[in-house]
Amino acid sequence: METVRLKVITIVAEAILEERLTADLKELGAAGFTISEARGEGSVGRRTMDWETQNLRFEVLVAESVARRILERLAADYFPHYATVAWVADAEVVRGEKYLGR
Amino acid sequence: METVRLKVITIVAEAILEERLTADLKELGAAGFTISEARGEGSVGRRTMDWETQNLRFEVLVAESVARRILERLAADYFPHYATVAWVADAEVVRGEKYLGR
Amino acid sequence: METVRLKVITIVAEAILEERLTADLKELGAAGFTISEARGEGSVGRRTMDWETQNLRFEVLVAESVARRILERLAADYFPHYATVAWVADAEVVRGEKYLGR
Repeated sequence: METVRLKVITIVAEAILEERLTADLKELGAAGFTISEARGEGSVGRRTMDWETQNLRFEVLVAESVARRILERLAADYFPHYATVAWVADAEVVRGEKYLGR
Repeated sequence: METVRLKVITIVAEAILEERLTADLKELGAAGFTISEARGEGSVGRRTMDWETQNLRFEVLVAESVARRILERLAADYFPHYATVAWVADAEVVRGEKYLGR
Repeated sequence: METVRLKVITIVAEAILEERLTADLKELGAAGFTISEARGEGSVGRRTMDWETQNLRFEVLVAESVARRILERLAADYFPHYATVAWVADAEVVRGEKYLGR
């Protein structure tokens, strides 16, 4: 079966950022995303920060160029201000061409 | 430590498909799976579809041959009819031989 | 944009193990983790075990050396006693150096 190599970005962010982040993801070319509820604990700099606030875990399947743009937006507008975590992994997708439109 | 290279398939599908999809996964050789609740938004063709219905996110750890069979089943029986998303990634597993039995 | 190659470990374990497992993850060098609720079904040896108990899905972003230590701990102290599943994948992270401190 023919598959396409894409990237999956996982973003964990505070729930209050949902509207803003989903608007950014769409603007940057994401054709869709999956959201699940999460909580976490992490450290920012030398300070330990418990995120006992509600977090959301976003998964976004995109072409590599879109992944780059999303990471750049996160680095510029989110990481400096919010306890946000993001990572990118390789994903093999059937019918992946529908994610490559933009 | 000895590890085995497997595939992890992530499938996001409508909650009403749970029974059918888990039966298919077992039939095709999956030894187990993890389910969490999710919601999403995506586009199918030119039409934007909000999946405000409850979705489930399945993760299935399998040998590559089983991953192929699962993707083929999804492409044949699910993608044409349901707002289903699936992707495959590499995973390194300890005691992975227990996933290779079928 | 500069990124760092890390590992993401996904662990699915019974909810009652949360306190012990998070303590172990921190002790072994994890700077943070994300937890979401999950349920699953799997087989252990020849016996099929439905985990209808509440499970948690942990995601931990770590350097490869820390990933090894976590897998070793899981193999020694968790897998023999609990229905625990764990796998490791590659992840590309912006500002990943904050995960490499230990």
